Amino acid sequence: MPQTNKPLFERIAIIGIGLIGSSLARAVRKNNLARHIAVATRSTETLAKARDLSLGDSYTTDAAEAVIDADLVVLCVPLGSMATLGKAIAGSLKQGAIVSDVGSSKVSIIRDLQGILPDGVHLVPAHPVAGTEFSGPEAGYASLFEGHWCVLTPDANTDKQAVAKVRSLWEACAMRVEEMDASHHDRVLAITSHLPQLIAYTIVGTATDMEDDSKREIMKYSAGGFRDFTRIAASDPVMWRDVCLNNKDAILDILGRFSEDLSALQRAIRRDEGDYLENLFSRTREIRRGIIEMGQDKPDIKPENEN
Amino acid sequence: MPQTNKPLFERIAIIGIGLIGSSLARAVRKNNLARHIAVATRSTETLAKARDLSLGDSYTTDAAEAVIDADLVVLCVPLGSMATLGKAIAGSLKQGAIVSDVGSSKVSIIRDLQGILPDGVHLVPAHPVAGTEFSGPEAGYASLFEGHWCVLTPDANTDKQAVAKVRSLWEACAMRVEEMDASHHDRVLAITSHLPQLIAYTIVGTATDMEDDSKREIMKYSAGGFRDFTRIAASDPVMWRDVCLNNKDAILDILGRFSEDLSALQRAIRRDEGDYLENLFSRTREIRRGIIEMGQDKPDIKPENEN
Repeated sequence: MPQTNKPLFERIAIIGIGLIGSSLARAVRKNNLARHIAVATRSTETLAKARDLSLGDSYTTDAAEAVIDADLVVLCVPLGSMATLGKAIAGSLKQGAIVSDVGSSKVSIIRDLQGILPDGVHLVPAHPVAGTEFSGPEAGYASLFEGHWCVLTPDANTDKQAVAKVRSLWEACAMRVEEMDASHHDRVLAITSHLPQLIAYTIVGTATDMEDDSKREIMKYSAGGFRDFTRIAASDPVMWRDVCLNNKDAILDILGRFSEDLSALQRAIRRDEGDYLENLFSRTREIRRGIIEMGQDKPDIKPENEN
Repeated sequence: MPQTNKPLFERIAIIGIGLIGSSLARAVRKNNLARHIAVATRSTETLAKARDLSLGDSYTTDAAEAVIDADLVVLCVPLGSMATLGKAIAGSLKQGAIVSDVGSSKVSIIRDLQGILPDGVHLVPAHPVAGTEFSGPEAGYASLFEGHWCVLTPDANTDKQAVAKVRSLWEACAMRVEEMDASHHDRVLAITSHLPQLIAYTIVGTATDMEDDSKREIMKYSAGGFRDFTRIAASDPVMWRDVCLNNKDAILDILGRFSEDLSALQRAIRRDEGDYLENLFSRTREIRRGIIEMGQDKPDIKPENEN
């Protein structure tokens, strides 16, 4: 246990103050995890919003300024901005500083930052697996992370103390923390997160391309299943563009498998193969049961007080 | 307005007492829409459950017996059972009886029942667009239909009085009722309901086929998007098999469009076409805004009392 009233960090710099960055800032404040929160973002407009929301103790559009004297720097920007940002802050980091992130792809983080950060600075890649379809500093909230998993992907050479501190940060935000090999993380998340997201974008895109009359009716009757996909497909486009570009191999592999399975389904429908369809639709119940048994979702059979 | 205390129907026969049939039975009872509810299902086990739940006033495994003297018969069985069921009850229907259903495909209902039902019996195909991923009589509840759409697909020859009565039934269950051409219904629902369902089955199937180690991790990290799909993919396999077989043309058309769009996405990822990806992921937000503006979903930005 850390000493009472002594925060985990003296100064945390949060670079990028969107959904995740602003939720982290709120959780750090709420749980008293740092004496000083330095907020940086490139956009003056976003910075003004962050200031209005009192998300930090200091505000700047200059990431290099924010990281001065920080013992923890958390990069909360799209994956495609990591390399440039790393170069911008490298010269201002103090010895012993920890640099972490919140990106959905971990191999690319290591590729983009490992060689750029000076000796004596510790890179601890992290992925808090939590989010909503909303973006921007006003969309964040302190309890966003609660009960979700956070995956850390240090390698054998990563400083153990630094890993422990990053673990403590996310545990203090009520996350369950696991360590994993970076490329293994990327393959698992390609299935559990990237594939569903890309499928949702595609399905909503297919509907968006329909003639206008149909579009109105699609919206009207969306409660029949489609609506859930539109919610997912409202997520931040730049963030997801960068996930695609930075976890390309794992994503193309899983999209390939999915496409094959979809072709098999189409073929079975065309040939009226009822047994094949019933079998496929039955097997998928098994994984749902597993998720409920592992406490990852509620069974939630019907509204309360209904019979 | 109907006269006070006089129910809309004297005798309703509900054939098939799963999620939808049992929810209808509960809603009919709760809103006093019939003097007598006759429940029929082929399975003695299911019938016993229905009796335990007091869903009706009489119970039988013989649909032909249930429909005797019924002024409304609602067929709540999978689409593939409609033709056989229609033949079984045709001889027992009284003159002037209305036969309706709750199936997800309407062209096939007309094809399977139109020629079978005797003259003087009115076929009014209906589709209450509501449901959950749960099955069986115990999964139903009276408010399942509230606020959702119900689509009726009568043709020019359908008795207007009969259509009005079926409309009144679903309006009394708090549904918003629309009339539509049967084949138009099938095309709209192929997009809003059947495509999302089949994609959910496929994505969960793709994951189910992964090696066992990955499967555990897929369940563990399912909160990253995948979980929503497993919920959808837990729906009744026989019902969905029959939807595929009975709305085949519209489903194959929309699956074809979806496949093409998915191939275009894969190609863009492989070629690092960031602009294409960002553009696609931005366009899909438009349809979400439309759904929220039409009151079909809540914006629901963050949990209450959070900042």
